[in-house]
Amino acid sequence: MKAADVVIIGGSAAGLTAAVTTRRHYPDKSILLIRKEEQVLIPCGIPYIIGTVGSPEKNLMPDTPLEKNNIDLIVAEVTGIDCEGKTVTAGGEEIAYDKLILATGSLPAVPPIPGFDLEGVYAVQKDVDYMRDFQQRLTEVSEVVIIGGGFIGIEFADEILKTGGKTVTIVEILPHCLSLAYDEEFCVEAEEVLRERGIDVRIDTRVEEIVGSGRVEGVRISDGSTLPADMVVLGIGAVANVELAQKAGLRLGLTGSIAVDSTMRTSDDNIFACGDCAEKLSFFGGRISPLKLASIASTEARVAGANLFGVTRDNPGTVGVWSTAVGGFALGTAGLTEKMALDNGYEVAVGSVEGPNRHPGIMPGASSTKMKLVFEAKTGVLLGGQIRGGDNVGGLINSVAACVQQRMTAEEVAMFQTGTHPALTASPVAYPLVNAAEIAIGQMRSRS
Amino acid sequence: MKAADVVIIGGSAAGLTAAVTTRRHYPDKSILLIRKEEQVLIPCGIPYIIGTVGSPEKNLMPDTPLEKNNIDLIVAEVTGIDCEGKTVTAGGEEIAYDKLILATGSLPAVPPIPGFDLEGVYAVQKDVDYMRDFQQRLTEVSEVVIIGGGFIGIEFADEILKTGGKTVTIVEILPHCLSLAYDEEFCVEAEEVLRERGIDVRIDTRVEEIVGSGRVEGVRISDGSTLPADMVVLGIGAVANVELAQKAGLRLGLTGSIAVDSTMRTSDDNIFACGDCAEKLSFFGGRISPLKLASIASTEARVAGANLFGVTRDNPGTVGVWSTAVGGFALGTAGLTEKMALDNGYEVAVGSVEGPNRHPGIMPGASSTKMKLVFEAKTGVLLGGQIRGGDNVGGLINSVAACVQQRMTAEEVAMFQTGTHPALTASPVAYPLVNAAEIAIGQMRSRS
Repeated sequence: MKAADVVIIGGSAAGLTAAVTTRRHYPDKSILLIRKEEQVLIPCGIPYIIGTVGSPEKNLMPDTPLEKNNIDLIVAEVTGIDCEGKTVTAGGEEIAYDKLILATGSLPAVPPIPGFDLEGVYAVQKDVDYMRDFQQRLTEVSEVVIIGGGFIGIEFADEILKTGGKTVTIVEILPHCLSLAYDEEFCVEAEEVLRERGIDVRIDTRVEEIVGSGRVEGVRISDGSTLPADMVVLGIGAVANVELAQKAGLRLGLTGSIAVDSTMRTSDDNIFACGDCAEKLSFFGGRISPLKLASIASTEARVAGANLFGVTRDNPGTVGVWSTAVGGFALGTAGLTEKMALDNGYEVAVGSVEGPNRHPGIMPGASSTKMKLVFEAKTGVLLGGQIRGGDNVGGLINSVAACVQQRMTAEEVAMFQTGTHPALTASPVAYPLVNAAEIAIGQMRSRS
Repeated sequence: MKAADVVIIGGSAAGLTAAVTTRRHYPDKSILLIRKEEQVLIPCGIPYIIGTVGSPEKNLMPDTPLEKNNIDLIVAEVTGIDCEGKTVTAGGEEIAYDKLILATGSLPAVPPIPGFDLEGVYAVQKDVDYMRDFQQRLTEVSEVVIIGGGFIGIEFADEILKTGGKTVTIVEILPHCLSLAYDEEFCVEAEEVLRERGIDVRIDTRVEEIVGSGRVEGVRISDGSTLPADMVVLGIGAVANVELAQKAGLRLGLTGSIAVDSTMRTSDDNIFACGDCAEKLSFFGGRISPLKLASIASTEARVAGANLFGVTRDNPGTVGVWSTAVGGFALGTAGLTEKMALDNGYEVAVGSVEGPNRHPGIMPGASSTKMKLVFEAKTGVLLGGQIRGGDNVGGLINSVAACVQQRMTAEEVAMFQTGTHPALTASPVAYPLVNAAEIAIGQMRSRS
């Protein structure tokens, strides 16, 4: 029987990172990664296939990390796991493992809406052929409706718009797009940017039915009208892919994802899980976290891979750090928004600042950066931050993330020694992270 | 007699930040800032006056923070401090203070080289009229020699080159440019970039004499040759401006800067000092730090301003975080380089990685980012990091700075939850900060 010390099921961000981490921490173990895709799409890059990057083939995860790290690869579907016998069945063949990592990812959520199975309704599948078909279809249509105004929805909307000659409409059921990641003032700005670019943004709007006979013809919405549509894209989130785990008898968590402890171990001592398929707890208070992101998957994979033959790492829970960009407009978030913090029962102090990301503000490439930091009011501990700006947002939000994860207080953030440069950053006198903390300190002091 | 609760001498990064911080922490105190300049240049922006920004008038610190924070301003030279009587003499007038902050900055260092007083030899003065004259002179010359290949030297060289029609030569006495901030491999890359842009870079070269009769004609260097020059720029650093402090009898430190404790208090209980004029201790081991940066000045000013009427903040010492850019090429550093760490007696483990700062690597704006992290080998504590990349370097080096200042271990850095996005950052699978830490962990493990 074929055998490996470590078998990993799944080849996306979680599976690949778990494999490389296992190699780093266990140089002498044999490692086998089994995935069902011949080629794996970079998950966060999928929207950019449409307009910016050009084709699925240009958005592939390379196999070089596998080769360089002496990790075997089998492309096959795993159909069963025998926890007792410690084997998996892949492409009809039994393979023995000592430790198993499940990185089976997620599947697009399908809404309980009549008509979602009409021809011309697309989900966002992490599949090269599917996305090739998606792109082909785009060349034939003129009216696209996107259901869901989260990250996936707005990124697809903008990329589809770039292909030209189409109307693009986003339908969002909540009062604002992106409202699960940002406070209202940031969401409103994002909606303005989308509208300026020519996207019809319908907020506070429910989709009642996708209409058509055989093929999609329109989307009936809660105001009673029907938006004409010859293509519909579902961007309403993802559900953990737990079929294999469930069949194998592994315990599922509250959200139906695979239950894991903080070492990423499942209910079976020899099986770990990480990424979209694994249940997540929040860094804040340990509540269930609904987030599914490749960056979270990678962190969890680094915990799982390191812990296989002896625990050295604990997952402190999901902070939630993400960014998005539409044209030159970017948003980043780390940890809790003000609304989330209040909803979770925290008393908060908030510091918001806005200023140029260069100094002087006429340096080339300058744009205005807005930063909002949310602190717990009694202890001063940083709960989260949000940033709106240009392409500096990706790096800046990770500075905030480091402060959040270190549970820094407003005082510690205010004393954060940053580097500054006219061509690269805001002025040291008005560095946003530091100044937002100072403002919150003033607020806390005036209350006490 | 005129009087203010708090008097601040100096209006650059330290003075302005100290004033605003004082207002934030003491809403009811009267604050008076005295500076000798009618208009204050943004210090780090001075090189960019030449080519990018266009004139000194476009590189001014605004007075709006003073107005908004109800801070009085007097433009006058302070000629004396009476510590006993708690008064300063400004423009011939006596002004009483309760607390005094010295933010008198620094003056350009002048080398012990014959000929530095010839006409056509310029230092980098933080003075609008001086820089206007400097720019005027540039229109009349064709051969510029810059003495010193540190940040100021290379930024001036590149900006002067942009004005066109000139040869520009940098003469650096050390084996490499920028070698007080970066390890050799980064310095070599920077030198290559400067040479590609057309700058003649002479390393390991001492200036013996600036030659000319009345007016500069050339620079004689250690290989015996003389570089022709009709303009010479000194970029060899700065010395603390301590004249007032010394006259007032305040104690000076080992480097001749104003001695301060970790609350930024001088040897007089009612006088604080911050910025270039104040002595600095390193975050690492508390040794004397020679660094003089506006970002450090701002942090120190936030300590001084907060502590005037009751200590709430401690300066943990200077981490040293800085970045520079030449065209699209940027370098950032935080904390100790590998060489500095070794010179200071640390045993180190190093992780270096290189990869694109977008994912996939063909996303617009992608460039290759190289990151090197240096850890103390026994404890795993992060001592410093260096980055070479594009304009993402400014934000990214501040993420490293947060990790350094929190004394995070390699394990903690590897578990750092970062946000990623195709258009803004590296892939989560290969996030440089995390991967460099993993490499160092492997190194530490294989040794033990």
